[in-house]
Amino acid sequence: MAKKLRKLSSSNGASKAPVKLTPRDKATRGKLLSVAESVIAAAKKKREPAVAVPLRSLSNVKYNRIKRIIEMGSAKSERGLFNLSQAKSYMQTVLVTSGCKRLIDQAKTTSIRGLFYLLKHTISGTKEETFADQDECDPIIEDVEVLLESLREELHLYAKKAGDLVGDIVIVDRGDEIDCSRMGSGGYGIPSIVEEQFVQFKNCKAKFILHVEKDTVWQRFNEDKFWRKHNCILTHGGGQPPRGVRRLLHRLHNELKLPIYCLLDNDPWGYYIYSVIKQGSINLAFESKRMAVPEARFVGLRSKDFVRCGLSESVQIKLNDQDKKRADQIAGYPWFTSKKGWQREIALMKKNDFKLEVEALISKDISYVTEVYVPERLEEEDWRELEG
Amino acid sequence: MAKKLRKLSSSNGASKAPVKLTPRDKATRGKLLSVAESVIAAAKKKREPAVAVPLRSLSNVKYNRIKRIIEMGSAKSERGLFNLSQAKSYMQTVLVTSGCKRLIDQAKTTSIRGLFYLLKHTISGTKEETFADQDECDPIIEDVEVLLESLREELHLYAKKAGDLVGDIVIVDRGDEIDCSRMGSGGYGIPSIVEEQFVQFKNCKAKFILHVEKDTVWQRFNEDKFWRKHNCILTHGGGQPPRGVRRLLHRLHNELKLPIYCLLDNDPWGYYIYSVIKQGSINLAFESKRMAVPEARFVGLRSKDFVRCGLSESVQIKLNDQDKKRADQIAGYPWFTSKKGWQREIALMKKNDFKLEVEALISKDISYVTEVYVPERLEEEDWRELEG
Repeated sequence: MAKKLRKLSSSNGASKAPVKLTPRDKATRGKLLSVAESVIAAAKKKREPAVAVPLRSLSNVKYNRIKRIIEMGSAKSERGLFNLSQAKSYMQTVLVTSGCKRLIDQAKTTSIRGLFYLLKHTISGTKEETFADQDECDPIIEDVEVLLESLREELHLYAKKAGDLVGDIVIVDRGDEIDCSRMGSGGYGIPSIVEEQFVQFKNCKAKFILHVEKDTVWQRFNEDKFWRKHNCILTHGGGQPPRGVRRLLHRLHNELKLPIYCLLDNDPWGYYIYSVIKQGSINLAFESKRMAVPEARFVGLRSKDFVRCGLSESVQIKLNDQDKKRADQIAGYPWFTSKKGWQREIALMKKNDFKLEVEALISKDISYVTEVYVPERLEEEDWRELEG
Repeated sequence: MAKKLRKLSSSNGASKAPVKLTPRDKATRGKLLSVAESVIAAAKKKREPAVAVPLRSLSNVKYNRIKRIIEMGSAKSERGLFNLSQAKSYMQTVLVTSGCKRLIDQAKTTSIRGLFYLLKHTISGTKEETFADQDECDPIIEDVEVLLESLREELHLYAKKAGDLVGDIVIVDRGDEIDCSRMGSGGYGIPSIVEEQFVQFKNCKAKFILHVEKDTVWQRFNEDKFWRKHNCILTHGGGQPPRGVRRLLHRLHNELKLPIYCLLDNDPWGYYIYSVIKQGSINLAFESKRMAVPEARFVGLRSKDFVRCGLSESVQIKLNDQDKKRADQIAGYPWFTSKKGWQREIALMKKNDFKLEVEALISKDISYVTEVYVPERLEEEDWRELEG
């Protein structure tokens, strides 16, 4: 046992031989180093080391009507070492940059939880912890993202993985060629980090992307080989799509010129998912330009589907107070206020006083959604009504 | 628009040409039909149509010390049509069997939410709904599983999908050959239904399975190509593994004789996940014989790891009241009471008064868990201490 313990303690995490960095890693590393260099520069000039972090609050977010995405404004907040109320978050900011540099130098990635553990320690000579808990670390990570204009993925950090993909495309993922038309029922699990240096596209024969909300709906479409019949790529994001899925949709749309159609529930949550895919999210507005797809189209479910599809009352789910409040909030977003079609859509849902899940279509027939509903919507192009 | 509506309403979900059934589907279909036949038989004899459903309560669950799995007892509850308090659930039971037969006849699968929508309707001539909500439907599905001794997957029902796999094995999934050693960072998304008729194994060169709790830990092991270095299959179940993952582990273990090692958090939740993989769960005791792997081994984290690995106090997470209560419950399970090692393990966690996540090992080094921790545990075989 003593031997074992010695053996263990000899593993001190010393850094390995330097790895060859990609050009993009080099650029990110340079930005991270600039933070450290600013500390030295300030010290030499006998000034206060400080960073100016772009504000991530709602007040600093605006909708760009030309680009049709949510963008951050230019407001910044100063964070200095000699200010008692700012010193801790300043040091945490520098600490996060040092952790990310370490990841890049070792050519490794980790989860945001992993980075938290990597950096959490008692500051020498004090009883002060660098971070009390992860809730204190996560916003600092987002600060570093906006500060350096680096996506989290470029900082070698990954989020929880969710979402799957099938379709007639070969994806090269870390050198492995994955034929997504030969993935059985499981599909290709969309990784959290899908930047160009890790993931490339090859031999895409698909003509568009159908993105559905939930994995259970995705399984129905996959089982019916919808993607083969309609020559498309089929994705889901397990509800609100995580960053990896949004980034992949963005890349497929922009690099391969594939239109994106979204099949989501007829409820405020479904509207919101569509809004995030299309314009970006308020919390992560700084990422919109590399995540948002303003041309994404909404193929359903629509508030008029109860009548249009002749559904039975049994499948209605009554709106609760939270649904109504959320519907009003969404109707008030600038990117929805300008669309009469969307205002009518949300108003009709409220008038209906019920919501409809995609699964409700099963009451017509198990494959009604794949054989009738989506093909008809694609033919009718009734998203034009919404965008007007 | 009128034309469109006519076109839509003409899609009445009429059943398609009969499909060729697999032998297993035929067997399940026969069991489902026997429920319908029992109604006819009862009617002819002028008796009450009824079913006797095995009880799924804790009182009817026992631990089989020979097989080392949780099993159901023989208690049953009668459910008859002419009993006012049983009539509804009797009809619901028959309704679920008819829905599953419809799925098998169409060679389609659906989610449990899908089946709920398929069967939900207002009973003709009344204002009575077949099911008020899904909470009323799900237990009936489990009743039908135990009644017919058919796994949910045999009834063509799937659950939410979670979990991924990489390693040196070719998996044939619905006819597609998937080389799981060439899956990049995403891995093979483990489907919900992995029965032999859908999923087969081929060319397995791996020697064991390492199952980790979370996808973020799985990503670390995958990035470090642990499975290649150690010639194993690497899986995760996104926390508590869903049925598809448990069934796949069971099949890989039994058909390919691969030992299973579990890397889970040092907390009651991690112990419970291990317990479910090993002995089965109390709720789904009827599935244990096709899900549980009594030989599964626990490689960590252990309560002694704080000392053994020389971790800093910063990574401790204090036990809360719920943790302590849950720890006592788990220590009281018959399959843990008989193991002195496990009693000591749980007692030490309580004495420590903190829990440890697998990610805490990152504080040693980013790849400490893949390069030091797990290789040492496998070499030491310290699970023997627990099983004693």
